[in-house]
Amino acid sequence: MEPGDAPVLALTCGEPAGIGPELAVMLAADGTLSARVVAVGDPALLAERAAMLDRQLDIRVLAPGESPPAPRQGLLPVWPVALRAPSQAGVLDTANADHALETLDVAIDACRSGRAAGMVTAPLHKGVILDAGHAGFTGHTEYLRDACGVDEVVMMLATDSALHAHETGWHGDSALRVALATTHLPLREVADAITAPRLQRLLRVLHADLHRRFGVSVPRIAVCGLNPHAGEGGHLGREELDVIIPALEALRAEGLVLDGPLPADTLFTPRHLEGIDAVLAMYHDQGLPVLKYAGFGRAANITLGLPFVRTSVDHGTALDLAGTGRADPGSLRVAVALAVEMAQRA
Amino acid sequence: MEPGDAPVLALTCGEPAGIGPELAVMLAADGTLSARVVAVGDPALLAERAAMLDRQLDIRVLAPGESPPAPRQGLLPVWPVALRAPSQAGVLDTANADHALETLDVAIDACRSGRAAGMVTAPLHKGVILDAGHAGFTGHTEYLRDACGVDEVVMMLATDSALHAHETGWHGDSALRVALATTHLPLREVADAITAPRLQRLLRVLHADLHRRFGVSVPRIAVCGLNPHAGEGGHLGREELDVIIPALEALRAEGLVLDGPLPADTLFTPRHLEGIDAVLAMYHDQGLPVLKYAGFGRAANITLGLPFVRTSVDHGTALDLAGTGRADPGSLRVAVALAVEMAQRA
Repeated sequence: MEPGDAPVLALTCGEPAGIGPELAVMLAADGTLSARVVAVGDPALLAERAAMLDRQLDIRVLAPGESPPAPRQGLLPVWPVALRAPSQAGVLDTANADHALETLDVAIDACRSGRAAGMVTAPLHKGVILDAGHAGFTGHTEYLRDACGVDEVVMMLATDSALHAHETGWHGDSALRVALATTHLPLREVADAITAPRLQRLLRVLHADLHRRFGVSVPRIAVCGLNPHAGEGGHLGREELDVIIPALEALRAEGLVLDGPLPADTLFTPRHLEGIDAVLAMYHDQGLPVLKYAGFGRAANITLGLPFVRTSVDHGTALDLAGTGRADPGSLRVAVALAVEMAQRA
Repeated sequence: MEPGDAPVLALTCGEPAGIGPELAVMLAADGTLSARVVAVGDPALLAERAAMLDRQLDIRVLAPGESPPAPRQGLLPVWPVALRAPSQAGVLDTANADHALETLDVAIDACRSGRAAGMVTAPLHKGVILDAGHAGFTGHTEYLRDACGVDEVVMMLATDSALHAHETGWHGDSALRVALATTHLPLREVADAITAPRLQRLLRVLHADLHRRFGVSVPRIAVCGLNPHAGEGGHLGREELDVIIPALEALRAEGLVLDGPLPADTLFTPRHLEGIDAVLAMYHDQGLPVLKYAGFGRAANITLGLPFVRTSVDHGTALDLAGTGRADPGSLRVAVALAVEMAQRA
């Protein structure tokens, strides 16, 4: 595929006081953005961060919807979204909450209209968006789901496969991928949120996108139990017997290949991961500590079930690092690489 | 220290139909039991498993309470506890539940009377013990706590340090150690089980035993939040604000060095683990998947807060492997090595 034919990706710069803008600068400067990536953010802010980091960049402001030129090192094409107020690195300002959301809206519009094949998102700061009056905002994933009018999306994290194989020595060349059945929910609400219809919707999305976006012909998914030891036959909780096992049985009858429910603490070992394309964890802290341990700094977040590709960094705004140039662009680099790979396949 | 002065350790063989007896055989045959380890189990069963595995062993039956001879490869001293019924590898029999518990009682008695400095336990099968009528049996840890009449014990898992350092490259020569605030509890009961008095008791035990048993002069402990993102300032649950933070503040006033509460998914990364002696996870599947991923087959379980040393394998009875010789003795080897190290220090 010629560079000119490569899919266009929108890269939202996220919270302007965080590390998002400078990560975009770093990737453009070091040539990682060899794909046709267009930053979505304030061009003046990007220029300011480039100067703070002492990076020479050609920041090319595009017209709304204009296609980016052929990629080259040092070029950063931008679909401009102006700040609402001046932004200082590390200092949150509710006045810019709408700016951050607007970058998302511009990227969504580009994807839905076909001008971009997908989007990569730098971190938002949920607190400042809530404080600015957007009650009910729970994160990128849910915002995208609602904007696209789909019923169910799945949050999945993946490690950079090459690094992963190098580090563990036993997992071959396949990346560790962990999808979540519930995401940003207080722990005490998790058990009631795990219902058979929800698990079935999520697993169908996961199965379909592993096939469509990751090129797995017959995906095999390992499913964690909700309770320790996957409930140990009912001795440690009944949700496996009453909810999870029946849901998996129904999906197996549809042809899905599913292992489990398995105890989460032994699932992430070679014997159980062999041949597995993705793990479905029941909740955030059951699946993500091991994923981030395995791929620290080299993992990315993927939203499945949308009509376009969406990947994201696996970290927050890191306000304490903003403007220092010490932020690690590793996760954003993985997020871009994954989005390119997925967009070329879709 | 001369071998004759080394601390004596009792090694309970656990569920007789499981892999426990043959793991003891493997370690005696390959010379791992260079420490003064006495198996507690049925001598005839051990001989039978040694024959099945084609291992030549000198199984030396001791009198109750008799000290073991100097260790040498191929020697397996035994404090005998007779089976209640013949045991077939892989086949559970409620008739032998009392046999398994009796091996524990013999080991506890040896430790409490000073004839042993500690115990290492092969896996029990909880289900068969419950089915045999011991309602309320929840595992080794609680059984030992009650037998010793102590208020609070702490379950901690540790990886083999050398392997860990080799595999990850960033954690130096210190092992990953993860203690649990709650253990074998259905997930929906976890949030209510996390109380400030409980956290304070657990963290005092953890602090004291890291000092006494692991030789850490001023232990530094990282504490996970209960909710995803450690509650994100109350947006994802209030237990951090209402329970965990006040408990940690009170302990800091006593001089404990504590980090947190921290989001569990970023805690297990180099930036946060640097200088940390142990992590306290709030529940089983928050802490153990990453621990077992990091140290698969090379991790052991430790009970802190007892008047003697106790370590254990980190796996179950593996009935499907019993009698085949394919079981991996790695975890038992780590459990023995840790117990020797801890017993010499105490």
